Amino acid sequence: MSSPAALFTDRSGWAPDGPPRAVVRARTVADVQRTLAEASRTGTPVVTRGAGTGLAGGAVAGPEAIVLDVSGLDRILGIDPVDGIARVEPGVVTAELDRAAAEHGLMYAPDPGSVAICTVGGNIATNAGGLRGAKYGVTRDSVLALDVVLADGTLLRLGRDTVKGVVGLDLAGLVVGSEGTLGVVVGATLRLLPRPTRVTTAVAYFASVAAAAGAATALGAAGLRPAVLELVDGKTLAAIDELRGTGHAGRGAALLLVQADGFGAGEEIAAVAAVLGRTARSVETTEDAGTAAALSAARRDALPAIEAKGRALIEDIAVPRSRLADAVDGVHAIAAATGTDVFVFAHAGDGNLHPIILLGPGTAPGAIPPAARRAADDIFALALALGGTVSAEHGVGLLKRAWLERELGPDVLALQRRVKAVFDPAGILNPGKAI
Amino acid sequence: MSSPAALFTDRSGWAPDGPPRAVVRARTVADVQRTLAEASRTGTPVVTRGAGTGLAGGAVAGPEAIVLDVSGLDRILGIDPVDGIARVEPGVVTAELDRAAAEHGLMYAPDPGSVAICTVGGNIATNAGGLRGAKYGVTRDSVLALDVVLADGTLLRLGRDTVKGVVGLDLAGLVVGSEGTLGVVVGATLRLLPRPTRVTTAVAYFASVAAAAGAATALGAAGLRPAVLELVDGKTLAAIDELRGTGHAGRGAALLLVQADGFGAGEEIAAVAAVLGRTARSVETTEDAGTAAALSAARRDALPAIEAKGRALIEDIAVPRSRLADAVDGVHAIAAATGTDVFVFAHAGDGNLHPIILLGPGTAPGAIPPAARRAADDIFALALALGGTVSAEHGVGLLKRAWLERELGPDVLALQRRVKAVFDPAGILNPGKAI
Repeated sequence: MSSPAALFTDRSGWAPDGPPRAVVRARTVADVQRTLAEASRTGTPVVTRGAGTGLAGGAVAGPEAIVLDVSGLDRILGIDPVDGIARVEPGVVTAELDRAAAEHGLMYAPDPGSVAICTVGGNIATNAGGLRGAKYGVTRDSVLALDVVLADGTLLRLGRDTVKGVVGLDLAGLVVGSEGTLGVVVGATLRLLPRPTRVTTAVAYFASVAAAAGAATALGAAGLRPAVLELVDGKTLAAIDELRGTGHAGRGAALLLVQADGFGAGEEIAAVAAVLGRTARSVETTEDAGTAAALSAARRDALPAIEAKGRALIEDIAVPRSRLADAVDGVHAIAAATGTDVFVFAHAGDGNLHPIILLGPGTAPGAIPPAARRAADDIFALALALGGTVSAEHGVGLLKRAWLERELGPDVLALQRRVKAVFDPAGILNPGKAI
Repeated sequence: MSSPAALFTDRSGWAPDGPPRAVVRARTVADVQRTLAEASRTGTPVVTRGAGTGLAGGAVAGPEAIVLDVSGLDRILGIDPVDGIARVEPGVVTAELDRAAAEHGLMYAPDPGSVAICTVGGNIATNAGGLRGAKYGVTRDSVLALDVVLADGTLLRLGRDTVKGVVGLDLAGLVVGSEGTLGVVVGATLRLLPRPTRVTTAVAYFASVAAAAGAATALGAAGLRPAVLELVDGKTLAAIDELRGTGHAGRGAALLLVQADGFGAGEEIAAVAAVLGRTARSVETTEDAGTAAALSAARRDALPAIEAKGRALIEDIAVPRSRLADAVDGVHAIAAATGTDVFVFAHAGDGNLHPIILLGPGTAPGAIPPAARRAADDIFALALALGGTVSAEHGVGLLKRAWLERELGPDVLALQRRVKAVFDPAGILNPGKAI
């Protein structure tokens, strides 16, 4: 952690009123148990954090809270290559787990944008997704068992070591995505998958973002479910050109990046290219890793290119796949109506859009100008109107609390809160977040 | 339903003490709501049922209970081929949903052994798996949203229509596998996947069941995860030969059935055959559907062939994949020690074994001879000793209640019961089952 402030904020831009009551840097499971038992006794809020890469304010801690930093619990305890299982502590950086798995010919599938710096524990807290999600799912799909410390300090093991199991309720799955409100994850048993030996890549440019979104939908309709299916809009392409000196914007007003892996990857990408070719301006495919890296740089550069222009709100809606073009069109209309700068890239295979609202120069840290706030609200309303959700993979945290009841309804929200109370009767675990 | 008794038992062989207090055949969601509200008011237990194909006693109803039969809620409400989503009522027969999906080039992946007669609602209650589980997962992986009536008659919609979503706790996932203890599922939004256009099949015979189990493990170690990976032991092969006049037992003491699908299925099965060929007596592969059906008949005939010999206990343990051979050996040793007839087939790709304990001629309905009971208990103990579970996909129901606390531990079980109480404070939903 570079500065004390970095210990009670995250990447959401949300600023707490002041420093927390205390910061505990846990080195052992017993540290976590002691901290929670004491906090329960005194009724003190506890905000658990890993690397602080969250985008929804879930790890932001107010002055009344204890910050429980578990990033020091960072060991990979074991990898069993035959069973395809890893046992890790929560502070392990996601990309490092994937690298360790690679030594055994395996991969850890979840790969959020922040994979190089985020931790497995944070991924579990938010049920993080990523680029490979179209084929390999989200973090919950990779979790077999969790070691969880409850609010009173009790250590429980939830889940199991086998791929299948139906004994009891799926409490491990329930903890995934609960944003630190049910317990503190101090260990995880995770699935590893065979590392694909072949990856093929296609990049296509389109005359409009609607055409690109339509092509993404057409892939699904053709029965094609590639491992990666990403969309980048023209505004974002222009930002990348500005940052990197590339010439994307001259080639089209939107880009689709598609990757297939495993047996038949070449044949699959040929089928993909045939569908894209119906409406694309150009389609390029490659089986060469170096060329693929160059082709896919546009997607990897998208967020850095926008953030180079200034502070931004990173949104995270999802809609049914068939509504992808409507969603992109709607976001652009909202940008025009609110006079905001909104960039869009998307995990198109999942119907998951990231509209990025630029806050403009001179915006104070922690402040969100009214036009940007209105744009964000309109984007959330659009997501719900299209049958979607206000958060696909970043979480609710603090930022989307106002939308929680609107999406879930009062009865479901009340039920969720009653379930939380079972795990945390004193309400000390990340209060005021997520649910 | 063929007889009144069929309305309060299932396929577990468990016999209740007498007919239930009443049977409600729900035709509408309102019927379900009214039944539960009234039962909550009067504190009457409610046992929900679909087709009654359960193997763990989850749908067995005692004399004090109301049976709530939802098999009449059997409409497929819609299939959206672009979004890959089906909306169904719980009484839809699983194979019929898959057939309806096939008309759009899609498939509903979960395919339990009883797929032709079981219902989607029952599959959700038990988180049913099936043959394709090695690649496509279990029922929970196919559930996006559930319409659930709580014990007090409230109708809630849990989950969402999008592939991804992290707003609130995953209560839909929690209801999957809860065996009717949290609420009554009256509607489901399910994922459909592209129907593979190509399926290739390999069948290999081995000199011993240990060699076959070892080969299954070797496939995983080689990074191969085919869609179907099934093991049938020699005793079961002999039973099939007896029923069908086939000659399996002469070809080996165990069989592995492997299927790959999608792009590259041919290449994948060739890689599979190369690994199997190292230790198999013989390996045969085909891309022809007719030949594949003939080759895979042995697996489909396994249970009917054993049941043709008499009533049987159908067990359902899972172990880490690397312990598969140990588990099969252990089951055979238990059979020898207890003097019981035990047949084994397995979803080997998931480490999921079905030891089938023949009860012998003359065993009264509902009765389990002491030797069979001892064999079952020893098999459960074996599963736990190998780091596994006493139920991979059939559920706990009544049959495995005695093993629940031993697998979960008292603290986790207590937590599960507190979570159940949130959904069902009066404890009327399938009391005495599952948890």
